[in-house]
Amino acid sequence: MNKYRWTTLSIILAVLFASTGVCFAQEGSNDALESIVNVQKYNRAIHIMAMLIVGFGFLMVFARGYGRSALTATFLLVSVAIPIYFLISGLGIFGEPELEIDRLILAEFAAASLLICAGACLGRLKMGQYMLLGLIFVPFYMINEWIILGGGLGLLPGGAFADTGGSIVIHAFGALFGLGVILEMTTKNEFDRAIESDATSERFSMLGSMILWVFWPSFCAALVAPELVPRTAINVIMALCGSTIATYFASVAMRKNISIADIANATLAGGVAIGATCDHATYPAAFVIGILAGVLSTFGFAVIQSRLEGMIKGIDTCGVTNLHGFPGLLGGVAAIFVIDGISVGTQVTGIGITIVIAVISGYISGKVLSAFGRRAEPYEDSEEFIEAAP
Amino acid sequence: MNKYRWTTLSIILAVLFASTGVCFAQEGSNDALESIVNVQKYNRAIHIMAMLIVGFGFLMVFARGYGRSALTATFLLVSVAIPIYFLISGLGIFGEPELEIDRLILAEFAAASLLICAGACLGRLKMGQYMLLGLIFVPFYMINEWIILGGGLGLLPGGAFADTGGSIVIHAFGALFGLGVILEMTTKNEFDRAIESDATSERFSMLGSMILWVFWPSFCAALVAPELVPRTAINVIMALCGSTIATYFASVAMRKNISIADIANATLAGGVAIGATCDHATYPAAFVIGILAGVLSTFGFAVIQSRLEGMIKGIDTCGVTNLHGFPGLLGGVAAIFVIDGISVGTQVTGIGITIVIAVISGYISGKVLSAFGRRAEPYEDSEEFIEAAP
Amino acid sequence: MNKYRWTTLSIILAVLFASTGVCFAQEGSNDALESIVNVQKYNRAIHIMAMLIVGFGFLMVFARGYGRSALTATFLLVSVAIPIYFLISGLGIFGEPELEIDRLILAEFAAASLLICAGACLGRLKMGQYMLLGLIFVPFYMINEWIILGGGLGLLPGGAFADTGGSIVIHAFGALFGLGVILEMTTKNEFDRAIESDATSERFSMLGSMILWVFWPSFCAALVAPELVPRTAINVIMALCGSTIATYFASVAMRKNISIADIANATLAGGVAIGATCDHATYPAAFVIGILAGVLSTFGFAVIQSRLEGMIKGIDTCGVTNLHGFPGLLGGVAAIFVIDGISVGTQVTGIGITIVIAVISGYISGKVLSAFGRRAEPYEDSEEFIEAAP
Repeated sequence: MNKYRWTTLSIILAVLFASTGVCFAQEGSNDALESIVNVQKYNRAIHIMAMLIVGFGFLMVFARGYGRSALTATFLLVSVAIPIYFLISGLGIFGEPELEIDRLILAEFAAASLLICAGACLGRLKMGQYMLLGLIFVPFYMINEWIILGGGLGLLPGGAFADTGGSIVIHAFGALFGLGVILEMTTKNEFDRAIESDATSERFSMLGSMILWVFWPSFCAALVAPELVPRTAINVIMALCGSTIATYFASVAMRKNISIADIANATLAGGVAIGATCDHATYPAAFVIGILAGVLSTFGFAVIQSRLEGMIKGIDTCGVTNLHGFPGLLGGVAAIFVIDGISVGTQVTGIGITIVIAVISGYISGKVLSAFGRRAEPYEDSEEFIEAAP
Repeated sequence: MNKYRWTTLSIILAVLFASTGVCFAQEGSNDALESIVNVQKYNRAIHIMAMLIVGFGFLMVFARGYGRSALTATFLLVSVAIPIYFLISGLGIFGEPELEIDRLILAEFAAASLLICAGACLGRLKMGQYMLLGLIFVPFYMINEWIILGGGLGLLPGGAFADTGGSIVIHAFGALFGLGVILEMTTKNEFDRAIESDATSERFSMLGSMILWVFWPSFCAALVAPELVPRTAINVIMALCGSTIATYFASVAMRKNISIADIANATLAGGVAIGATCDHATYPAAFVIGILAGVLSTFGFAVIQSRLEGMIKGIDTCGVTNLHGFPGLLGGVAAIFVIDGISVGTQVTGIGITIVIAVISGYISGKVLSAFGRRAEPYEDSEEFIEAAP
Repeated sequence: MNKYRWTTLSIILAVLFASTGVCFAQEGSNDALESIVNVQKYNRAIHIMAMLIVGFGFLMVFARGYGRSALTATFLLVSVAIPIYFLISGLGIFGEPELEIDRLILAEFAAASLLICAGACLGRLKMGQYMLLGLIFVPFYMINEWIILGGGLGLLPGGAFADTGGSIVIHAFGALFGLGVILEMTTKNEFDRAIESDATSERFSMLGSMILWVFWPSFCAALVAPELVPRTAINVIMALCGSTIATYFASVAMRKNISIADIANATLAGGVAIGATCDHATYPAAFVIGILAGVLSTFGFAVIQSRLEGMIKGIDTCGVTNLHGFPGLLGGVAAIFVIDGISVGTQVTGIGITIVIAVISGYISGKVLSAFGRRAEPYEDSEEFIEAAP
């Protein structure tokens, strides 16, 4: 891979960014109360950043051979996604958020979805390709966001699709996009080599998982009105408690002994699934959604994954289909039963559109990425990183 | 242990939870300012969650053989404690908090106390037993909370006992309950096998300790009125600074070289001890309380622990007596000297009642837990977890 | 080193602290809105504490031989710096902040600068010496802060120097002070022994780096008015995105393969450099400042460091010159180009004064510290800590 190509790309990007950036200028609000509410949003934005960088980053460290590349890729993916989102959003094509702080949170949502997608491809891309993935992913993500939530193209009435915490537009989209990418990017001999973890990489992975668990309420409540924040947060916590307990029982039932990978991942499925209904559900409903999501996700890791991988001939390294794909879809569908007066047609259509856009654009992205190098052998950190002692 | 028994228990629990959950429904406040204050409480609730999950979780990882079980148990204990607290609180027996967000914080306090208790039992329970411990612990905790803080049974005047940050009702209660449990649950041959740590498990343990240190001000100030938050937070920080400095000097003085276990634990004793007076103390008083707590806690780890364990024939795995027991009691007593116009009788009685309830209910719980399996050999992760490479 | 000397010192310190502490007493604000704004500041103070303890602490764990001492030193440095800052600030010599919460944040800034300085000396001081360093550092830091920001001695007009996020008074000051210390404290045979890291210490180091990255916006926006918080935060994030992307490209360009130490450190240079202009820059300007800082910092690690160390015959263990020194100065100078109507004279004079005070007071401190023991051989944790299994 030619590094000058990348440098050129980066310079173009920077110039583009700088030239359009001027339209971001915005004055702070003069209303004291509104300013305070915005600072509270900012605070949730920081929590989300902890999830993106520390949470997703360390969750991916379970693979002991990819520690440095997974963490570096996380840094790079976030650092590409957020300015690109600001850049495109500033062009005004897809409408503009009213407040800068909302734009930041929406950009973080895009970065979360991108990180989910990248989890499927872990160990298959070089650093430059991760950045390229970010450049391609964010526009597709924004098109889907615009169609589903913003009424883009008039396919759905704006604001009618229920997905406050992003079960569909963030989690399922990212997972399915990743599935599209790996259709093209997996090579046969990856099936012969299991991804290895060890006691230390497992504990780092649990750290990532725990950071995600802890700050998840801020993710779902990020853009919610102040008076709904407590209810939303408690719903998310109830869903996470449900999926955590369910994951333990399901892991033991399906595998005889507990898999720490289930514990690190499927415990979070409640957070994924409650997204669509987090500001509407009652606590018991949230708890039950969490239980269902935990069981479904564990079933995904224990049973579905190997079959699906054989079927599509692609390896989903972090199992994002099981953590973000199925539970995300579950959450989107659960909204039909949980939210009074929801339009079933809108909800179903929105889910369908998201699936189609994600898989197709993911597949296209895989094609593009493979033009920049497709691997025969699994990635090792030592290819791109200076070696330390083991 | 019969896993179907556990499954049944879990289903009963879920149904119970769902059936009573409906009474949690609550509308958000319509007052803008009040909503904002509640969001600030929510924010401290997230900080507390970081302490519970990442803080307590990783603090327990010092034992290199229990990494996966300690982290998984932490997830499960929190996930059991919070819904159970909501469930029982929703029944209205012990009175109900006015605001949902207060209920969440009180549920987190219960989870903190439970995690302290579990720290005493680490390496002695299987995952199912940890959950059972949670089911038993929370009601006892709530009875004590109700008697001491809520005026339950008319033993103490409601609201008169000084314990804003929970030195007595959270820390001492959890530690003494744990002491009660291990009276019954320790087996003789545990005394022959020292708990081993290594350089990596020690650093993980320090991570847990640091997360607790950092967010402790939010724990103590969680339910404090906005105008008292800065003072409370600074008092907590002063106490932690005091105990940190004192721990270093005490560890060197008592052991010749520094024990990293002292640093990971006794540095936090200031946070434990300042709880009772965090919103009343002056900064110098807070600093001095921290120094005393740090010395006391280090003395506990270096000198008392082995004698006490021999005496009661029980092993306190994480030394919670030294970190939460003695410093908690110190804090409760310090209130008598620090708070103007405090009722000495109320304070002393409340401490006494807490000690009695904690030890007795802990002992009963130990009896119940041992019916579900009492170990001859120390626990190893490999009993319940699928093995990874070492 | 005589440990009784230290104990005596500590008692004197405690008494001093207690006797003057009384003047800190302050009543909470009665204005509801003001109290809420103060709680929001408190919240950013907690974020900063996470950076100080977990961020700086773990960033220093990259050296596998210093894990326990680096983390313990971090605890001790913060625990000394904050009370000392309160103590001196309470004396009123340098003027007093209006609000207690502002004083806490300013004390945390001093602790950050101290930790930066300590990073240069890592592996050269014993625990007692770190504390002594804190005792000496904070007064010098406060003199500089007073002269540069508070109009002390009338050298600069108060409030005219642009440095909201501390590029100069926090980062450059700490780094240059550290440079002064190591002039005196480095021994020749330290040059023969490279500092070793391993896969685990590298991942811990990345954890520290990520915590710093995530919470950096709260550092820069800590004392900013509510209506400017979103803009400030986004500027910081843009700068960090810029330095992160730039670091990757620069590391590959300068070293052929990526150095994880570059990724852990130089990615943060954007946060350092944006400090001086964080509340004034436009987003594209912030992004560009970040890119420049990332390249400069990586160049520092890859090229300048070894030459500079040879020249001054001192070893900068954590490379703080490259992360905090050069990018801090870059940020201070950038203010001249970015902020409309800035006084160039004031900015240049302030930077110059800071450089002079930092290097001279650092050199003096090095002299004092070496009186308490100067090492012939590099430090090993085992000198002061009880050994665990490796």
